[in-house]
Amino acid sequence: MRIVVVGASGTIGKKITEALTPNHEVLRAGRNGVDVSVDLMSQESIVNMYETVGQVDAVINASGGANFKAVPDLTPELNEKGIESKLKGQINLVLLGQDYLNDGGSFTLTTGVMMDDPIPMGASAAMANGGVKAFVKTAAIEMARGIRINCVSPNIVEESWDRIGHLFAGFSPVPAERVARAYVKSVEGAQTGQNYEVY
Amino acid sequence: MRIVVVGASGTIGKKITEALTPNHEVLRAGRNGVDVSVDLMSQESIVNMYETVGQVDAVINASGGANFKAVPDLTPELNEKGIESKLKGQINLVLLGQDYLNDGGSFTLTTGVMMDDPIPMGASAAMANGGVKAFVKTAAIEMARGIRINCVSPNIVEESWDRIGHLFAGFSPVPAERVARAYVKSVEGAQTGQNYEVY
Repeated sequence: MRIVVVGASGTIGKKITEALTPNHEVLRAGRNGVDVSVDLMSQESIVNMYETVGQVDAVINASGGANFKAVPDLTPELNEKGIESKLKGQINLVLLGQDYLNDGGSFTLTTGVMMDDPIPMGASAAMANGGVKAFVKTAAIEMARGIRINCVSPNIVEESWDRIGHLFAGFSPVPAERVARAYVKSVEGAQTGQNYEVY
Repeated sequence: MRIVVVGASGTIGKKITEALTPNHEVLRAGRNGVDVSVDLMSQESIVNMYETVGQVDAVINASGGANFKAVPDLTPELNEKGIESKLKGQINLVLLGQDYLNDGGSFTLTTGVMMDDPIPMGASAAMANGGVKAFVKTAAIEMARGIRINCVSPNIVEESWDRIGHLFAGFSPVPAERVARAYVKSVEGAQTGQNYEVY
């Protein structure tokens, strides 16, 4: 298959790319994408990416950010990053990409454990994750031409533990390689409307 | 208690107001609010509402919209109503209202059955619902001064069946009066971080 991975240079994106490369043509996208550059916060940039890569069989997103801030200090302005990047960025990747997917293709987005197992300062990210999960579940019932859509909800990964593990007290981190397998399941499997929890 | 109900003139808002009025001082808010007007899509309007009503013990929102459109026809622009109204409108009501709530006060927002039980054309509304649910669950762990936060997820209500029941094939509508009780539970009870499903 011909597969675009947005966020291919990230911790999880790299493992997804490694897992798919032996069997597929993988196009690495991102803000500094090796094969094509894209900024999910810009609709124009998303359209440009699709125009550049043309028709594909699968689109994976492993990027998207949100501000980490306790709710008493969270302002509408600080919440905007999660809205524009992690939520709308991912959903616009689907809305603007539907026509570029071959029949029976798939979208795979990324949510995260914080929506199910709250951590301090995680409300904005959780909001975005929950929005993406619910969108995916509903979108799956009406995608055209057999196109499927899933998301993957990773736990904190071992590779990020030293940097941000202090935010995840008592969590058991998982290897990014195990998270990557859920994206492979979404792309190569036949399920749709799923949120694969890799906890 | 002193309670603001945003969307007080809506189908569910009316029943919430009826249920609370015997025991509380209820301030009816909305775009054409009887006691105070507010447009959740405007931060300035939300702040003006709080400045007008002053300190309260509970804030309930029973308003918020989204466009109903099948995903193949859903554009980022059409998705924006759900983002700005049902999602950000509700979250900004919390972020901008925290300081106006008395110690031990509560916020109660509204999600909806479509996020759990998908219907055609419901993806944008489901997205907003899922975002609010995840935000509420996480925000609950770090609200200041004992402030609680919950949401209510109503099924389609009997009162709306004639108008929009055709979108909810096979659903069993519930009386709006039963939905209203979940808001009473949120306000008068002691739970936090909950999404009360009235299905």
